[in-house]
Amino acid sequence: MTSYRFLLNAGEGRAFWLNGEGLDEVEPLDALDFRATTFPAPPEWASEQTMYQIFPDRFARSEAAANRPCPAWAITASWDDEVVHRGPDTPRQLFGGDLDGVAERLDHLETLGVTLIYLTPFFPAQSNHRYDASTFGRVDPLLGGDEALIRLVQAAHARGIRVIGDLTTNHTGDAHEWFRAARGNPSAAESDFFYWNDEAQTDYVAWYGVPSLPKLNWNSRELRRRFIEGPDSVVAKWLLPPYGLDGWRIDVANMTGRQGEDDLNRLVQQTVRRTMDEVAPGSVLFAESTNDSSRDFDGSGWHAPMSYSAFTRPLWHWLREQETRPVHHYGIPYEQTPAASAESFARAFRRFSAPMPWAVRSLAMNAIDTHDTPRFADRADTAAQLVAAGLSFTLPGTPVIFAGDEFALRGSDGEASRTPLPWTSDALLAPEYARLAAARAASPALRTGGLRWLHAGADIVAFVRELEDSAELVVASRSGTEISLPTTSLAGRTVDEFAPPAVTFGELTLDRAADRLRWRASGPTFGIWPLRTTAALSAGAAAEAGTGRREAFESAHA
Amino acid sequence: MTSYRFLLNAGEGRAFWLNGEGLDEVEPLDALDFRATTFPAPPEWASEQTMYQIFPDRFARSEAAANRPCPAWAITASWDDEVVHRGPDTPRQLFGGDLDGVAERLDHLETLGVTLIYLTPFFPAQSNHRYDASTFGRVDPLLGGDEALIRLVQAAHARGIRVIGDLTTNHTGDAHEWFRAARGNPSAAESDFFYWNDEAQTDYVAWYGVPSLPKLNWNSRELRRRFIEGPDSVVAKWLLPPYGLDGWRIDVANMTGRQGEDDLNRLVQQTVRRTMDEVAPGSVLFAESTNDSSRDFDGSGWHAPMSYSAFTRPLWHWLREQETRPVHHYGIPYEQTPAASAESFARAFRRFSAPMPWAVRSLAMNAIDTHDTPRFADRADTAAQLVAAGLSFTLPGTPVIFAGDEFALRGSDGEASRTPLPWTSDALLAPEYARLAAARAASPALRTGGLRWLHAGADIVAFVRELEDSAELVVASRSGTEISLPTTSLAGRTVDEFAPPAVTFGELTLDRAADRLRWRASGPTFGIWPLRTTAALSAGAAAEAGTGRREAFESAHA
Repeated sequence: MTSYRFLLNAGEGRAFWLNGEGLDEVEPLDALDFRATTFPAPPEWASEQTMYQIFPDRFARSEAAANRPCPAWAITASWDDEVVHRGPDTPRQLFGGDLDGVAERLDHLETLGVTLIYLTPFFPAQSNHRYDASTFGRVDPLLGGDEALIRLVQAAHARGIRVIGDLTTNHTGDAHEWFRAARGNPSAAESDFFYWNDEAQTDYVAWYGVPSLPKLNWNSRELRRRFIEGPDSVVAKWLLPPYGLDGWRIDVANMTGRQGEDDLNRLVQQTVRRTMDEVAPGSVLFAESTNDSSRDFDGSGWHAPMSYSAFTRPLWHWLREQETRPVHHYGIPYEQTPAASAESFARAFRRFSAPMPWAVRSLAMNAIDTHDTPRFADRADTAAQLVAAGLSFTLPGTPVIFAGDEFALRGSDGEASRTPLPWTSDALLAPEYARLAAARAASPALRTGGLRWLHAGADIVAFVRELEDSAELVVASRSGTEISLPTTSLAGRTVDEFAPPAVTFGELTLDRAADRLRWRASGPTFGIWPLRTTAALSAGAAAEAGTGRREAFESAHA
Repeated sequence: MTSYRFLLNAGEGRAFWLNGEGLDEVEPLDALDFRATTFPAPPEWASEQTMYQIFPDRFARSEAAANRPCPAWAITASWDDEVVHRGPDTPRQLFGGDLDGVAERLDHLETLGVTLIYLTPFFPAQSNHRYDASTFGRVDPLLGGDEALIRLVQAAHARGIRVIGDLTTNHTGDAHEWFRAARGNPSAAESDFFYWNDEAQTDYVAWYGVPSLPKLNWNSRELRRRFIEGPDSVVAKWLLPPYGLDGWRIDVANMTGRQGEDDLNRLVQQTVRRTMDEVAPGSVLFAESTNDSSRDFDGSGWHAPMSYSAFTRPLWHWLREQETRPVHHYGIPYEQTPAASAESFARAFRRFSAPMPWAVRSLAMNAIDTHDTPRFADRADTAAQLVAAGLSFTLPGTPVIFAGDEFALRGSDGEASRTPLPWTSDALLAPEYARLAAARAASPALRTGGLRWLHAGADIVAFVRELEDSAELVVASRSGTEISLPTTSLAGRTVDEFAPPAVTFGELTLDRAADRLRWRASGPTFGIWPLRTTAALSAGAAAEAGTGRREAFESAHA
């Protein structure tokens, strides 16, 4: 891994540094550098996905679901019951969604343009979220068991849709077979899988002090062997036949392996990755990192983050409605959800993503909401949600639809957002999501092109995603506003006068003058314009383009 | 080590983060956090020093120097010869300064207020700079040998002046006894002390490819034992009787232990520190770090950096004259020395020092120039040099005088700056240096107090160093300019109407109005005003002070 930044000698004693934060006359800290690596790149297919996050208990029930007995920990709910989002019953409320339910709805996913399903955990557990696994050895019978997973993956693959699972490398459930074997039993083979506070192994370290989540101790060689290392490990098992998952999303990845003075995070992520490369080359590895992920994501282990700092949070801050009910921000003690400008959104996106190698940031999950946040539609109107979705499909990263967003579902917190999908209603926003997915599928530039900000102002952003021979221009606004850019800022490309925008949401119009492009937005709007690359630039045109670029750049950095 | 930042909830959906960079509405990266540690603090005496850097070959000759034979590598020079600062003869020119020469000039140091001598290397070598040691086992006979070091340290201690040495943990010279034993001899005990490119051990890794500086390989346990670990090590030997050094400055510390995939830097720094704590508790450990030192200096090993990023470089950028001859910037490819504002200077100082724990940053060496830079006076007038010196004595850190600065010596690069001291001339600036040292010696706030910027504008800064019951206000300007601050910005303190400023250089006058303080500067000026703490603040006064502080803060961050 090599970090780098640019020094621009501007003459007359002026010099500027260019790094992940942008331009600065003051010498920057190393931590903000760009990074280049020689680690193997993620699989090529990974950059072409539209991801769809499914919380299995809440997505859809197959017929078989009705006949399953309710386990002791659970309280059965009907599909149209209100979600209990506070109190002790929250994790116990079981709606009974299952994997065959997912398989039965693949038409819906295909309509949306989904190509990658991310399933939150499917292992047996003592809760509806299943992040407290009682084993990693089989699929929860409540979800249909191993066979249902096999059926789902096969059905998905038959449509060209890939499927990844969700692993908790940070902790297990307190009902986990390893934990039960070790608890109170110092001579157990699993004894060193956990952190104990007493010799009798009754008192243990639990994640965040939550007793149901004993923290895993990665110093244990046997734990590594069983869980993450080699073809007999948990990590390998579910990627291999007959299951054939296409990769993993790792839960609480940023805390994995970190406890007191221990920091085995890099060991864990590199071991997981090595095992995956060994048994399932071409599988993908996403990993949760709730805050600054720039240091943990160098590309040597996790492929890319599911982060909230670069995209999700700043997006909320910009696009939220006026009302300021606080949002659960992973421990950030905001009294209210802050209100931020489009420029702040762009700065945050750049700040948290630019220090990661391009191969990492261009795969990072750009979720507008997840099972751990309120629904976006809870704090913003549908028009704003479409702007948010548009950005998730066009900024570098993997677009993510949290199942139900296409129904414009609401939910005031990370628990309330886990609403059973209302299959009897229309998926109101499905056409718009489908259009975004199609636009991205049709454009190599939107999937893999470089990012160039043209403008980031009070309430509107414009940027270009570009490859040498193709490019797209994206505009997104929050309110009635406008921007005017010199045509030269397109650096030798033009907005095709005859090609319509690939996507527009809301009233967003483009006026062309001889030397300027002006977009007027009536409110929350979003649009993608394909750019045409003009014939090879003459030296004069190149210089002119340079001037335009600089003007645009300075405006973006003012 | 815990990193932290502040979140200021300002109401109405506004929130600000406060970290080492200042205030930001955008969530910051972890790397810019403040840091608190529980590592043992540096010795208390260390924060009370005025350091004086001596390059032994160029400081002063004792009578004995005349009788020493010229070694084969050297070319004898007379004391008033021009320094050869380019070409192969640069390291060979031997002026013959020695340690008894230093001992004979302790009067001069005492007059300046110096309390800590930093000697660049005194081990035998094949160059005048001696950073290419041929042994760490004895003092160069050309400097008077072991006995001369003992005499110097004893004479200095008798005056309450401490002495530290300079160690190269990154490399030795190619004439070093360890390297000679190992070269071409794979069975040597020193075989694994270096990095070899061939099995025969003839081709080796040299620092920056300079053949005379073979890179040390800290994987070697035997190297650690001989050099840095325990009471029989090199590190220990010179701290113990009969030598009794008070600590070390470590050369190229930031590259020490780093080679290819190896990163043993932390191991080396913590081992050096442990050995010092063991054999000479209360000894001090400075370490060179030419660029961003924020990550390597957590206080667990090196006590504090000799860095150029936080102080030296930004100071040059602000205070340099108009001419822009490039300065050797440790590889930074500036085409010209940049011109920066006072505000940029303050930003750089904050940026590079704030991420270090307070115990570290408050000891950091604040050098205006060194044996590796041009002399400050080469690029700025004497008045500007005094402003620079003033800042080195009043900002958090250890003030450093590079021997000869008090003579306003010039020297156009890091080699030319190693001028023999002109003892037959007046030390023009000695009175000003002495005044600064006296002011610092008299003021606990200047030595250990917190730092609060009141103003950092185009060409003038004002800040307060403060303890609960004492405080100093410092103003420094580069040109004819003025600032006006509300009296409330002093937050319950006042500039005593009857106490004169502790120091003023240049025409810097203070006008007091009922509610404002205004400083007018005629050019490069510097001043220290003692502040008086008023009686306990009433709630009203506290609120008013808050307003003043905010005004000042916002002005500093505008």
